[in-house]
Amino acid sequence: MADGERQGRVTAAVLAIGDELLSGRTKDKNIGYIAEYLTEIGVDLMEARIVPDVEDRIVEALNALRSAYDYVFTTGGIGPTHDDITADAVAEAFGVGIDHDARAVALLKARYKASGFELNEARLRMARIPDGATLIENRVSAAPGFRIDNVFVMAGVPAIMQAMLDEVAPLLRTGRKVHALTVKVTAPEGDVAAVLAEVQGRFEGVSIGSYPYYTQKGFGTNVVLRCRDEARLAETEKALREALAAAAAEA
Amino acid sequence: MADGERQGRVTAAVLAIGDELLSGRTKDKNIGYIAEYLTEIGVDLMEARIVPDVEDRIVEALNALRSAYDYVFTTGGIGPTHDDITADAVAEAFGVGIDHDARAVALLKARYKASGFELNEARLRMARIPDGATLIENRVSAAPGFRIDNVFVMAGVPAIMQAMLDEVAPLLRTGRKVHALTVKVTAPEGDVAAVLAEVQGRFEGVSIGSYPYYTQKGFGTNVVLRCRDEARLAETEKALREALAAAAAEA
Repeated sequence: MADGERQGRVTAAVLAIGDELLSGRTKDKNIGYIAEYLTEIGVDLMEARIVPDVEDRIVEALNALRSAYDYVFTTGGIGPTHDDITADAVAEAFGVGIDHDARAVALLKARYKASGFELNEARLRMARIPDGATLIENRVSAAPGFRIDNVFVMAGVPAIMQAMLDEVAPLLRTGRKVHALTVKVTAPEGDVAAVLAEVQGRFEGVSIGSYPYYTQKGFGTNVVLRCRDEARLAETEKALREALAAAAAEA
Repeated sequence: MADGERQGRVTAAVLAIGDELLSGRTKDKNIGYIAEYLTEIGVDLMEARIVPDVEDRIVEALNALRSAYDYVFTTGGIGPTHDDITADAVAEAFGVGIDHDARAVALLKARYKASGFELNEARLRMARIPDGATLIENRVSAAPGFRIDNVFVMAGVPAIMQAMLDEVAPLLRTGRKVHALTVKVTAPEGDVAAVLAEVQGRFEGVSIGSYPYYTQKGFGTNVVLRCRDEARLAETEKALREALAAAAAEA
C-alpha cells in the first residue's frame, strides 16, 4: 500500500491524541519513545501528529496517515471517561461498527474481580472495540488496546503504552535497520559545514545530520551518520574523519 | 482565513522539522513548550506535526497547516549545514524566491566579527531568507528566524527557539485566554467517570478532561476544567465538587 513498502522499507507514523498535549499541561513522552523503539527494530518513523480529543480531527489525521504509511500507532483517549473518544473515532475512520467486545469484557471482569473495584458502565466503555479489530494486551491495567488493519491503538499513559508496544512489536514486518553512529567534532558546525556537505555529496544512501551543541568548553557538533548498510556506514565515517582532519590541518 | 478567527479564537499549529526527532535520537521539547506558552497568552494550539528534513514533506505539511490555522510556528532546520533546508522549503511552499538578505547578513557579520569565528559561506547560508519575510531576532546566537505571512520560522535548539518565541509573542493577535483549574480526586477515574460525564453534560463551553495517575497511595484522577469564562469555570467547579461529594456519600 504505502510507498515505503515498495522500496523495501517499512514505514510508520504516530498519532498522539489529547487536548492536554496541545494545552501544554502534559508534555508528550510517547512520540520520542516510539521513535527510538521503531528505529531499533527496523521500522522508519516518517511523521508524527498531535491532535485534540475531537472526532473529526482524529478521523481526518488517521485516514491521512494510514493511507500514507505501512503502520500507524495512536496513543491516548482509550480510558473510561467521556473525553476518551479514540475507539469511536477509529471505528468512524474505518467505517465499521463499534460495540462491547466479549474478549475485552472478560479481561476487564477478571481484572476488576481481582482488584475489588466495581466494573461499572464507565469502565465497560474500555471494552468497546471496533468490529474486526484484534486486542492488544495490557499487562499493566488490563484494559486492552486494539489493532485494526495497519493501525495500532494504544494507551496514552507512558507505562501502559510501552507495555502495549512490547506486545505489538513481534507482529510488525520490519525492514533493514538503519544503523547510526556519531562523530563528535569539537568545533562549531559552521566551521565544518563545507566538509560535511562535501562528504554527503560523495556518499549517497548515507544520511549525514549535524547537531550543534554548546558547553562551558565551547561550541561543538555531533555529526550523526545513518545508513542501513554497516560497511557503507564505516566507509563514510572513515572518509569524514579524513576530510575533517585535512580541513583542520589546513586551517 | 482560518475557522478559528471567525469564532473569535486565535488558532495555531506547530511544525517541528528534523530527522533526529523521528529517529528518536533527539526528544522534542519544543512542542510542549510552545503549547504551554500559547495557552498562557490566549492562542489555541490545535495541532502539531513532526516531519523529516525532506523538502516535499515540509512543503506539504506547511501548506496544510498555514491554510487551516491563524498561525504556524516551525522549529528546526535553519542552521548552516547541508541538512538545514527549512528556509528553502518555506520559500517553495509560498512560491517565492530566496536569497541572502542584507539585514540578516549584517547581523551575522556583526556577530562573527565580535566572536572571532569566520563568516564563511556555510554560515552565510543562515542569512538566506525568503522574499517578503521579516526577521525574527535571535538574542542567543544572532542567526535570525523569520516571519512570512502567518508562518513563524524558528530554530530547533530549545534555548534559541524560546528566545525567538519571546520576540514573536508581542506580534500575535490573541484571543480570550482559556483558564484552567484542576480538581484532584483520590479515586480511580473509572469510579468518577459517570459524575464527570453528567457534569460535562450540564456545562457546555467548559471542557472537562480526566487524567488518571497512580502513586504508592493508590489511584487518583486529576480532573482539569478549561473555559475562557472564569465565572463559568468557578460555577462548573462548584457543581463538580458537589456532584463528587454526593456520589461519594452514596457509595
